[in-house]
Amino acid sequence: MTQERLESQVRFILEVDKLKEVFRQTLCTQSRRAENDAEHSWHLCLAVLVLAEHADEPRLDVLRVLKMLILHDLVEIDAGDTFAYDTARMADQHEREAKAADRIFGLLPGDQALEFRALWDEFEERKTPEAKFAAAIDRFQPVLLNTSTEGSAWNRHGVTAERVRARNGHIAEGSAALWEKTAAMIQDSVDAGHLAPGPAKP
Amino acid sequence: MTQERLESQVRFILEVDKLKEVFRQTLCTQSRRAENDAEHSWHLCLAVLVLAEHADEPRLDVLRVLKMLILHDLVEIDAGDTFAYDTARMADQHEREAKAADRIFGLLPGDQALEFRALWDEFEERKTPEAKFAAAIDRFQPVLLNTSTEGSAWNRHGVTAERVRARNGHIAEGSAALWEKTAAMIQDSVDAGHLAPGPAKP
Repeated sequence: MTQERLESQVRFILEVDKLKEVFRQTLCTQSRRAENDAEHSWHLCLAVLVLAEHADEPRLDVLRVLKMLILHDLVEIDAGDTFAYDTARMADQHEREAKAADRIFGLLPGDQALEFRALWDEFEERKTPEAKFAAAIDRFQPVLLNTSTEGSAWNRHGVTAERVRARNGHIAEGSAALWEKTAAMIQDSVDAGHLAPGPAKP
Repeated sequence: MTQERLESQVRFILEVDKLKEVFRQTLCTQSRRAENDAEHSWHLCLAVLVLAEHADEPRLDVLRVLKMLILHDLVEIDAGDTFAYDTARMADQHEREAKAADRIFGLLPGDQALEFRALWDEFEERKTPEAKFAAAIDRFQPVLLNTSTEGSAWNRHGVTAERVRARNGHIAEGSAALWEKTAAMIQDSVDAGHLAPGPAKP
């Protein structure tokens, strides 16, 4: 019984090694290659340790925030990464990802499958203080990387400052201080000529 | 005051983006490219969420385990990765890494620099139940990846099963169950012809 439980846990850990091959639009600041979901997830966890004090919720459960961020992108093993400004692919994003969640979390023992699925659902629903802060960090980090790589992903896809502000505005639901910093980074990118200010392309 | 604090925190988060360019000897199971420290650190966090129940310590502080693993390899930004079987480079490993810890954690506001350094010291000393379990996971994951890639890093460096057992034996200090599983994986690799059983090369 315990033996079979451990075996299925180890198979799950091996399966999610695939997250290292799911590439995002954001670039790493040093090599300028595309960032993958696994290293992105680590970077978010690191950012939580550093920035948790800026959450608006004074009694934030940091462990639950970390759990959500460690797990939040596993669905992309099956569903692929959906660029934050790709409205066409975003239309059926949740449906594709929910199907992936069924398969991937379903590899675990029943109690853990339920626990992990509940954490992913909580993250997606963005209602609790922990989910709001996790989502804020998940948006803050790509803006930071884009700002630090001359707006690379934004420019490649013709995204404007107006859309970047609209897409990332919910950072303010988790942290007023981080939203203020994000808005300043967006403006810095506009001022540096790395991000077009105008309305979205027709 | 708060503004300068946030600015130094953001600079730290950008600086540690470099961890994504520190490559290890272990291969990813899918593409068979070298794993980097950032995705390795994420994979360890994921493994903690799945395997924490196998820790010998019944009241494990999972948040502290995760904090240690999120931070444990940051020193390699300056000190580079030291292969677990490279005895020559291991001789001055701690000295190189302690110097790196001074610089890297020193980028943070003073209270956080102290907190992160204490977590890294705790991990290195491997005395608390949390540090023992974190170290167990940090050894378990490479054995799992090597076992799943036909002993790739072991073979490339002429490492034998005898040395793999000796190097990873401290997994038993954190979890008897994980050490039993590790020993079985090592034996499976020997049986499959992916790991030489004999003594280390002269």
